[in-house]
Amino acid sequence: MFHAVFGKTVPDVSLNAVANLGYAAGVFGVPVYPGDTLAAHSSVTGLKENADGKTGIVYVRTTGTNQKGETALTYARWVMVRKREPGRSGTPPSIPELPESVPAEQFVVPTNLNLVRYDVQAAGSRHRWSDYREGEKIDHVDGATIEESDHMLATRLFQNTARVHFNQHAEKDGRFGRRIVYGGHVISLARALSFNGLANAFRIAAINGGRHVAPTFAGDTVFAWSEVLGRLTVPGRTDRSRSAPYPHDRDEGSSLPGLPREDPWRQGSPRRGARARLHGTYPQVSP
Amino acid sequence: MFHAVFGKTVPDVSLNAVANLGYAAGVFGVPVYPGDTLAAHSSVTGLKENADGKTGIVYVRTTGTNQKGETALTYARWVMVRKREPGRSGTPPSIPELPESVPAEQFVVPTNLNLVRYDVQAAGSRHRWSDYREGEKIDHVDGATIEESDHMLATRLFQNTARVHFNQHAEKDGRFGRRIVYGGHVISLARALSFNGLANAFRIAAINGGRHVAPTFAGDTVFAWSEVLGRLTVPGRTDRSRSAPYPHDRDEGSSLPGLPREDPWRQGSPRRGARARLHGTYPQVSP
Amino acid sequence: MFHAVFGKTVPDVSLNAVANLGYAAGVFGVPVYPGDTLAAHSSVTGLKENADGKTGIVYVRTTGTNQKGETALTYARWVMVRKREPGRSGTPPSIPELPESVPAEQFVVPTNLNLVRYDVQAAGSRHRWSDYREGEKIDHVDGATIEESDHMLATRLFQNTARVHFNQHAEKDGRFGRRIVYGGHVISLARALSFNGLANAFRIAAINGGRHVAPTFAGDTVFAWSEVLGRLTVPGRTDRSRSAPYPHDRDEGSSLPGLPREDPWRQGSPRRGARARLHGTYPQVSP
Repeated sequence: MFHAVFGKTVPDVSLNAVANLGYAAGVFGVPVYPGDTLAAHSSVTGLKENADGKTGIVYVRTTGTNQKGETALTYARWVMVRKREPGRSGTPPSIPELPESVPAEQFVVPTNLNLVRYDVQAAGSRHRWSDYREGEKIDHVDGATIEESDHMLATRLFQNTARVHFNQHAEKDGRFGRRIVYGGHVISLARALSFNGLANAFRIAAINGGRHVAPTFAGDTVFAWSEVLGRLTVPGRTDRSRSAPYPHDRDEGSSLPGLPREDPWRQGSPRRGARARLHGTYPQVSP
Repeated sequence: MFHAVFGKTVPDVSLNAVANLGYAAGVFGVPVYPGDTLAAHSSVTGLKENADGKTGIVYVRTTGTNQKGETALTYARWVMVRKREPGRSGTPPSIPELPESVPAEQFVVPTNLNLVRYDVQAAGSRHRWSDYREGEKIDHVDGATIEESDHMLATRLFQNTARVHFNQHAEKDGRFGRRIVYGGHVISLARALSFNGLANAFRIAAINGGRHVAPTFAGDTVFAWSEVLGRLTVPGRTDRSRSAPYPHDRDEGSSLPGLPREDPWRQGSPRRGARARLHGTYPQVSP
Repeated sequence: MFHAVFGKTVPDVSLNAVANLGYAAGVFGVPVYPGDTLAAHSSVTGLKENADGKTGIVYVRTTGTNQKGETALTYARWVMVRKREPGRSGTPPSIPELPESVPAEQFVVPTNLNLVRYDVQAAGSRHRWSDYREGEKIDHVDGATIEESDHMLATRLFQNTARVHFNQHAEKDGRFGRRIVYGGHVISLARALSFNGLANAFRIAAINGGRHVAPTFAGDTVFAWSEVLGRLTVPGRTDRSRSAPYPHDRDEGSSLPGLPREDPWRQGSPRRGARARLHGTYPQVSP
């Protein structure tokens, strides 16, 4: 659903972007069901020129709505784009304030969600909210190798038409000499791989922050790991809660300060992938 | 839908064809919905021996019907096949008469089609029928690179089982040393790419003519361009009309006489693809 | 459906198996429809240590049920796994008794199955149960080349997460230096290819036995052939019957004794694939 909304923003926001820098303040709203029709609207919330005089950063907020007009998703993102007139400057920088993390008060819990008969055996793991500890690191172990067909098929389904993902004829002369995997596909793979260790995380409540720290290409194998950065309870509910309010990072150039030293991706041979920072809502028997 | 009907004709018409030469006089009938069951029937409408004494051309007309027996599609096609007994001849040539273009009177407009609330913003472009000019050429800009998995997956879904698309073990010793992309997949890509420039062409009314002028292989990148060859109004309707009655070409051997000199495909490095000649029905506010 | 049930057993049975040795005594139960939810349960039915002291064979029976608890599939399988403590032994061997073939009495014929209006023309062939002869061999002719994306997409859909199919980063240092195609995908291809020759085999009643005799890799082309080993009638029904009760083979190391000498796979250049031993239920007009 994130990708379907994101995909609709590509022609307006990032079709020719130099880089898709980051996400923050993302909140998932009403659940989306098969048959729903999603629409996306974006507004520019900030602008900042880069020192090179050729590029700048555009901040947007995108909201995805279903056919009833209900909000299914809202998130902020910032993208580096080329200037229409390189060298011409003068626009005062205007950077939107983005929260370090989404407060639990903003989480949207479906009103009819009932976890009384939640079946941990069917879900695949007995670990629940109270079994996770702050600071705990989980290596999700499995790896998924990406082929050109795989990422193009997924990206096409999201109606993301960015040239860098589809057009080898153009990209062979581009920055990397080849097609780049849509970063959202890598996020999805990381989320899917996280099942092995977070099997009961059945709904993502929010995205505090995310960045694509390195490009991913066909032939790469994606691994995922998670760190529990905190545990929250949802106001007014005792049957579920949130885990891992990962602090987002808006420092575009440097490595991620929030990464643990014992990064499993750095151990041994290279393991590529997006450092997808996700946190979800977990069922909880007793608060 | 075209491909599903076409796919069902492969075992009877073109499984072992030397070449799939062309299409003409195609008309799309009742709309097809998920859950419909399509059937295809073909009749041989003409025969012509080739001078080499080994092959000949078979002309067929194929009609696709839904589970109610309503016509969803009808089209003519001609295929080069090997003779059962090379050298034996004597069959007088019989070539069916095919129209230069499908007359607007034959277009099938769904009776319940209502365009009063047609939303150009949701469709993605404000250009309508009256915005296109005869002779206008549109480069659809985007390119789509094809992988082996991509075309086989699509072709398999259409139940087209022709060996040239699936069997590398056999094709490595074949004409090209590799699998050939199903030409209909290339037509579909061209049609999809044409969204960028023809976003409001929501229904193909007819196919006046089409040919596969060069084989396409995995690794190729397909581009598309269109030329508006004419604009027609549909008798009895004022809210929509047809564009681009592309003259079909039945000269099997030569290059396409109808191609403009400034063929975008010829500019710069090779851009492969089928020269899909499509024309659709466009919404029109005032006639 | 077989693969969906099988896929759910992977984390418990074969995620780290050395080899998936064989299947037997498989019976298909109630039909499965879109929207059904399948669950899988397995029980260990036997154990046998291998002479090397490092591995052993585990026999399991797996049953797949729909959301009503009805049995959709049951089958036995045996897998070679590493010992938790190599060298430690002493467990007395316990090998479950498995039938040479599933008796017709155990076939599950859907109670509402009515073949009065069965349409051989729509099915694609006029050959029915009475047209097949014991000992008849059918070369299904067509070949299907497998790409990495193809088998991973299929295997992912079945939620089979075994590393050997998905993780090139690990497998490049593995036994074969590359990913192995999920054997069930090869079985499915063989079953699909068998349409050309067994078009009226609309339901698989049982799997008497099956083995993966050689690994399959991306780039391989799969062919299929069948031998009619017998024809059975279903007790109480006169309108259909079973064909080809292929004797299963539990001799893990050797070649298949049941294979005919004129194995089409051995003729000419290498044709890879699983020797899928399937038998189905065929419509029959008069018994």
